[in-house]
Amino acid sequence: MKHSSPTIIIIGGVAGGASAAARARRHSESAHIIVLERGPDVSFANCGLPYHIGGEISDRAELAVQTPQSLRALLKLDVRTFTEAVAIDRMQKTVRVRHVENGTEETIAYDQLILSPGARPLIPPLPGIHDSRIMTLRNLQDTDRIKAAAADAKNVLVIGGGFIGLEMAEQLVHLGKSVTLVERNPQVLPQLDQAMVRPLEIALQKHGVHLILEDGIAGFEPHESSLKAILHSGRCLESDLVILSIGVVPENGLAKDAGLELGPRGHIVVNAWQQTSDPNIYAVGDVCETYDPILGTRVAIALGGPANRQGRTAADHIFRGAQAQPYPGSIGTAIVRVFEVSAGITGWSEKGLKQAAIPYQTVTVNAASHASYYPGAETVTLKLLWDPQDGRVLGAQAVGKDGIDKRLDVMATALRGRLTIDDLVHLELAYAPPFGSAKDVVNIAGFAATNIREGYLFPVATLAEAGAQIVDVRPSTVSSKQPVAGAKNIPLTELRDRLAELDRSQPVYTICQMGKTSYYAARILANHGFQAHSILGGAHHQL
Amino acid sequence: MKHSSPTIIIIGGVAGGASAAARARRHSESAHIIVLERGPDVSFANCGLPYHIGGEISDRAELAVQTPQSLRALLKLDVRTFTEAVAIDRMQKTVRVRHVENGTEETIAYDQLILSPGARPLIPPLPGIHDSRIMTLRNLQDTDRIKAAAADAKNVLVIGGGFIGLEMAEQLVHLGKSVTLVERNPQVLPQLDQAMVRPLEIALQKHGVHLILEDGIAGFEPHESSLKAILHSGRCLESDLVILSIGVVPENGLAKDAGLELGPRGHIVVNAWQQTSDPNIYAVGDVCETYDPILGTRVAIALGGPANRQGRTAADHIFRGAQAQPYPGSIGTAIVRVFEVSAGITGWSEKGLKQAAIPYQTVTVNAASHASYYPGAETVTLKLLWDPQDGRVLGAQAVGKDGIDKRLDVMATALRGRLTIDDLVHLELAYAPPFGSAKDVVNIAGFAATNIREGYLFPVATLAEAGAQIVDVRPSTVSSKQPVAGAKNIPLTELRDRLAELDRSQPVYTICQMGKTSYYAARILANHGFQAHSILGGAHHQL
Repeated sequence: MKHSSPTIIIIGGVAGGASAAARARRHSESAHIIVLERGPDVSFANCGLPYHIGGEISDRAELAVQTPQSLRALLKLDVRTFTEAVAIDRMQKTVRVRHVENGTEETIAYDQLILSPGARPLIPPLPGIHDSRIMTLRNLQDTDRIKAAAADAKNVLVIGGGFIGLEMAEQLVHLGKSVTLVERNPQVLPQLDQAMVRPLEIALQKHGVHLILEDGIAGFEPHESSLKAILHSGRCLESDLVILSIGVVPENGLAKDAGLELGPRGHIVVNAWQQTSDPNIYAVGDVCETYDPILGTRVAIALGGPANRQGRTAADHIFRGAQAQPYPGSIGTAIVRVFEVSAGITGWSEKGLKQAAIPYQTVTVNAASHASYYPGAETVTLKLLWDPQDGRVLGAQAVGKDGIDKRLDVMATALRGRLTIDDLVHLELAYAPPFGSAKDVVNIAGFAATNIREGYLFPVATLAEAGAQIVDVRPSTVSSKQPVAGAKNIPLTELRDRLAELDRSQPVYTICQMGKTSYYAARILANHGFQAHSILGGAHHQL
Repeated sequence: MKHSSPTIIIIGGVAGGASAAARARRHSESAHIIVLERGPDVSFANCGLPYHIGGEISDRAELAVQTPQSLRALLKLDVRTFTEAVAIDRMQKTVRVRHVENGTEETIAYDQLILSPGARPLIPPLPGIHDSRIMTLRNLQDTDRIKAAAADAKNVLVIGGGFIGLEMAEQLVHLGKSVTLVERNPQVLPQLDQAMVRPLEIALQKHGVHLILEDGIAGFEPHESSLKAILHSGRCLESDLVILSIGVVPENGLAKDAGLELGPRGHIVVNAWQQTSDPNIYAVGDVCETYDPILGTRVAIALGGPANRQGRTAADHIFRGAQAQPYPGSIGTAIVRVFEVSAGITGWSEKGLKQAAIPYQTVTVNAASHASYYPGAETVTLKLLWDPQDGRVLGAQAVGKDGIDKRLDVMATALRGRLTIDDLVHLELAYAPPFGSAKDVVNIAGFAATNIREGYLFPVATLAEAGAQIVDVRPSTVSSKQPVAGAKNIPLTELRDRLAELDRSQPVYTICQMGKTSYYAARILANHGFQAHSILGGAHHQL
């Protein structure tokens, strides 16, 4: 039986916890909703922190979405800041808390407990790691600290080229700092496939970021005037400030001590209503596992959108039980802006599918962000992955200067609807010249994918995978300015008349600027009996 | 049996016709593909014409996507301009053509014929309608004519507030003209519901367009110095140039004469592969009917995206027969930009559903285009319509200054995937502060819709529908500046303490700025035993 006036304790008042509290209050005016926060702030805009450091969000108060006072006034929440939960007694249904300011403790009873402690920055046990000039970014206090330190710093080292590392590098350049970014993978944003993040890397370098890939941090040597970071390669980097952003670990201490079931990487295991292995304890946000609705595997995804909606689901289940709609899993849609370039992903990457040994097919296409004849169009590069059996979309990535968020959102919606490559062909997107094209890049990805399935397009992903006979079908004026190594230039318009120049006993690999004309050329060749392959993404993508 | 080297005649080389020709060539190098065009141009950017008139697209050549020469060179097409098809002999499988320049005729045989003649502007038989100062916009020649006439005009009258009328009004203002826009409906953009286009009407007026609604054209009186338009109301308008954009009619003459089956409004009836009632004749684009995959009804939709993809479908069917993927219908996604405001629709409108007597539910929500704490966020107003039986989305409309195309594209993809309001709750869209919010306006529409279904939200659409007891729950500072007529101001934060001021025997209607706080207030009231209704869209929407 559900209690109509339960006492709900929520540990962690940001994102998932705040959403759970707000939703619980809509269900019941008489519920006693207690929000425990170790620090001074609740419900702050954690995704906005880098932009305050860089000055784009000038007013710090903008980041404090709600204060304990406003939550009390709006939602009648019992918000207790500087109050750390230290233990859960599942038998007694109580939480032991410690008042951070004076060290006293007390015990609070709950009917339902919602764990929303988040994840903390990973700090590897390296020599010198505890130097005060090495900082991580999680909350408003960290933001203040980094902002103050950055004011006096000349050289800043950002370790980790994930979403936060990239945002921080961008913002530190805005502040006029000399920025070095170190990433141990051979690419930034390792969630994406390598070719898709090259435009980000180029943008970083163009704006003066010293980018070091395939090298990790071995340790630090503190000196008075600066901090020396030693890389695995032996290389040394001097800086005044280090931002460490190499990942997060779930804040699972309370859950672990309470004996709740944890997943392989320490995340709390929950069911579709966010209930942990104890039905009176829920977990939401970065601390818990969820499932991937595309392939049905268990995943851990640390993102704000899922956290918020998981909080809502937990509150619904407390008041509505099995009538509540279950949480349908997370597909991991994410985006980052790095100067003028944006890139993002939804669903599975190629490297993820390879690792999981899931069969897939993929194509990468380029097209204009809106009608190419209307001013301001930019190239959108879209990578699509699908199931070769039934054509169902498995994932997508996009990169470019304009319209990247829109294409990711379309693909995220397609994933939720389990759409196929045939559905993408016929997506009917909003078209007027300032906004789109009669054939949007998403449609074009659908065209290319179905062309592959039907044997009209035999692509190779990159020039490196092509054989010896490469034909550059761009106009000679373009080709001579930016020649493709090893390619013979036969412009598309001359191809039909110059077939005799090609060796029919060898496959032909066609290349152009964007990967469209090379497809046309490959069709001409195939229809004339050649074995023809189009090099995807064109010269534009061979960065 | 399919012919490997058929002769395909395509009548009309823009959009659908051009796509069909290009796709046919990819299937076969040996097909003889003849494109007949009455005028001088093929494959021009018809959606870009208004922007060339207004100077945003300065180079006319940008609009000529392809020329007859380029199509010959790229696609080996036999393009015949100034060549008008005058009759089809279905028994002989021939087309009789007239050479416009010298009046001679000839007969050409086809294996397959694709009709892509488009639709022509509707010109009603009104007194004075044939004055040379009354112009319509369909092709590059019309564009040149309007551009020349506008150069000398001071006052321009635009008749019809649909997509083209709105784009022309905007562009003519850019040229410094004094513009009057007349629309016989009580709103511009009659495809959308009335409340959703009010921001467009306000933008028009703000930029000096003289907007006349609910008044149609009765006729024209030509004077030497200016042209007088007489409206149904008796009102007279003087202008130097009239742009007539009141709709289009399908160019069905050839099809009609050939005895092909036509729909109730004269569109050519086709099957899922775009075949007409004669299996050797296909029709694509504005001239043909299609079907609406949401409710399964027959519809006629004059838009570029569907035309292009129908052309592709027809070509696929010629070469692949029943193996070709059928065309899955059109949902009518459309968007227009009018100065700083954009608005659009996908799927069914409320008025369309009412007219068709289809049961529906609807909600309108407002939210920021991206994280409200990040600079530049604008309000997106999103209207959602769904099937009360199964929650399936039936249509959506959006209006605002930023991110309108993105939300329409998400909703268009949701419609293609037959998503429900529960799916919208959990769409996982790309979120970083410059791009979106952890709870996007699409999610919020899903929240509101499911709240209605579950009895948490009892909305009324507008203030006009509210009863006597209205409570304005905005802060007193806001409320006193823009008071809501007839409302008592009780700020949300004081509501719980001031319940005694309300009459429990009467329903309470809550209103705020955006329709969010009023929902919170209604939940508080409902949980205290009141019958409470939230006024959708808030004061922001009561324009």
